Amino acid sequence: MPEFCPGYVREPFTTLAATYPDETAYPSDDFRTEWGPIFHRGRLDGSARVLLLGQDPGQHENILRRILVGEAGRRAQGFLAKLGMTRSYVFLNALLYSVYGGTGARYVSKPRVRDYRNLWIDALLSSGNVEAVITFGAMAKKAWADYASVHQPPSDVPVVSLIHPTFPESAGGTKAEKQANTKKMLKQWNDALQMLHPAITNKDVPGTQLALYGDAFVDADKAEIPSGDLPAGVPRWMYRNDGWARRVGTTLLGKRRNITITVPDGVIP
Amino acid sequence: MPEFCPGYVREPFTTLAATYPDETAYPSDDFRTEWGPIFHRGRLDGSARVLLLGQDPGQHENILRRILVGEAGRRAQGFLAKLGMTRSYVFLNALLYSVYGGTGARYVSKPRVRDYRNLWIDALLSSGNVEAVITFGAMAKKAWADYASVHQPPSDVPVVSLIHPTFPESAGGTKAEKQANTKKMLKQWNDALQMLHPAITNKDVPGTQLALYGDAFVDADKAEIPSGDLPAGVPRWMYRNDGWARRVGTTLLGKRRNITITVPDGVIP
Repeated sequence: MPEFCPGYVREPFTTLAATYPDETAYPSDDFRTEWGPIFHRGRLDGSARVLLLGQDPGQHENILRRILVGEAGRRAQGFLAKLGMTRSYVFLNALLYSVYGGTGARYVSKPRVRDYRNLWIDALLSSGNVEAVITFGAMAKKAWADYASVHQPPSDVPVVSLIHPTFPESAGGTKAEKQANTKKMLKQWNDALQMLHPAITNKDVPGTQLALYGDAFVDADKAEIPSGDLPAGVPRWMYRNDGWARRVGTTLLGKRRNITITVPDGVIP
Repeated sequence: MPEFCPGYVREPFTTLAATYPDETAYPSDDFRTEWGPIFHRGRLDGSARVLLLGQDPGQHENILRRILVGEAGRRAQGFLAKLGMTRSYVFLNALLYSVYGGTGARYVSKPRVRDYRNLWIDALLSSGNVEAVITFGAMAKKAWADYASVHQPPSDVPVVSLIHPTFPESAGGTKAEKQANTKKMLKQWNDALQMLHPAITNKDVPGTQLALYGDAFVDADKAEIPSGDLPAGVPRWMYRNDGWARRVGTTLLGKRRNITITVPDGVIP
């Protein structure tokens, strides 16, 4: 039977998903608050062994109402798979709303943004089951530092701060520069894998042998987003690949007000 | 604290939301199966006193993943409010997917479509709490007849078959014809209200006095879709009014593959 995400049905997540900071904490000049907050992806039932922190949701996440569901998500999912983790993980973002413009990062440590996020992190760690924390990107690294500075994260849980999965693309540059950035990122990820692989003792796929990355992503390095991470009934093309949601417009405001969804080739017979 | 819909977290709904009929039961030539099934709106916890059946989801429903969230939903919600019902109701549709073209109605009674829908109806009636059944439109009327012909609905629960809330618009015609259709529909709805008002004894708003419709809708005749019927974090403009989701394209297939979302005026400051 295909699984789907049950959503925010357990406390404290029910209350957290109903009492999120709005545009008084995330100003509309700097965040796409009009699309609503996007909270998480993965297990909220205490079974998560790995806590991953990302940055902010994009347009695909705005539609699916779960985070890291596109290419960055598939790369992160592949990273988890190399650790033998196919289910027992949970993703949070540093920010609840899509950053608009370039100043979103300065909000990561603002008290209301930070304190709300820390409630989530605290709740997820309170299971006592988390064996590793992984941050992707600078905002996520800062988010963890903010947490660790005021709470008492378990001292025996390793924390690794990694380059964001789509940094090579978002950094731009020539094809050679992108390749170099990818290689550098995967080198860093490989180092982390070697540390994390023995640290995560409760693997979803026991006996998983560590297969490191090469200098570039190959198909086997990415993994599908599981249906169990998405709401019921979401069509598979929406979490198989991204690119189906775009912000389209001829003016800045027009573009901001728009999300255009296009079903990929081949889905409609 | 704002509420949100907890989704499909209780059996048999968890299993039903994971095992829905796909394009082998709803052919892609006649249904927009590419957007996924849309199951319901309202209470699945046994507290529903009114069961309402609608027709098929549209593009707004495809995005929000709940049914009757647009103008038809606001009119149905207003109808419920006149009965003192603001919470204890549940909506199902005759069909899980948007009809494509004009032949969707012929599938309402097909065994796999019918049998799956009957599992939902059966589960909702099994609470023993439903005090009235309301169908909107011909397909919904047929769906109920299909259920009643093979199951044993409680004989003391009144069933009313009403004109679909947006029939006056979908029927087209001149402004005068639309007004006449609205008047005719509201006359029928008034008759139903007078029968249902005393039949629904467990009202969410006890002591609600029956206020009938006039010849046309006034603002007070419609009611907002409650946040408690939508997934967590959905922005309010998405369930305040419809019109924000359109199928746009220059070819039939292009249009079918598209949903264009536009944030309404005034939402972004």
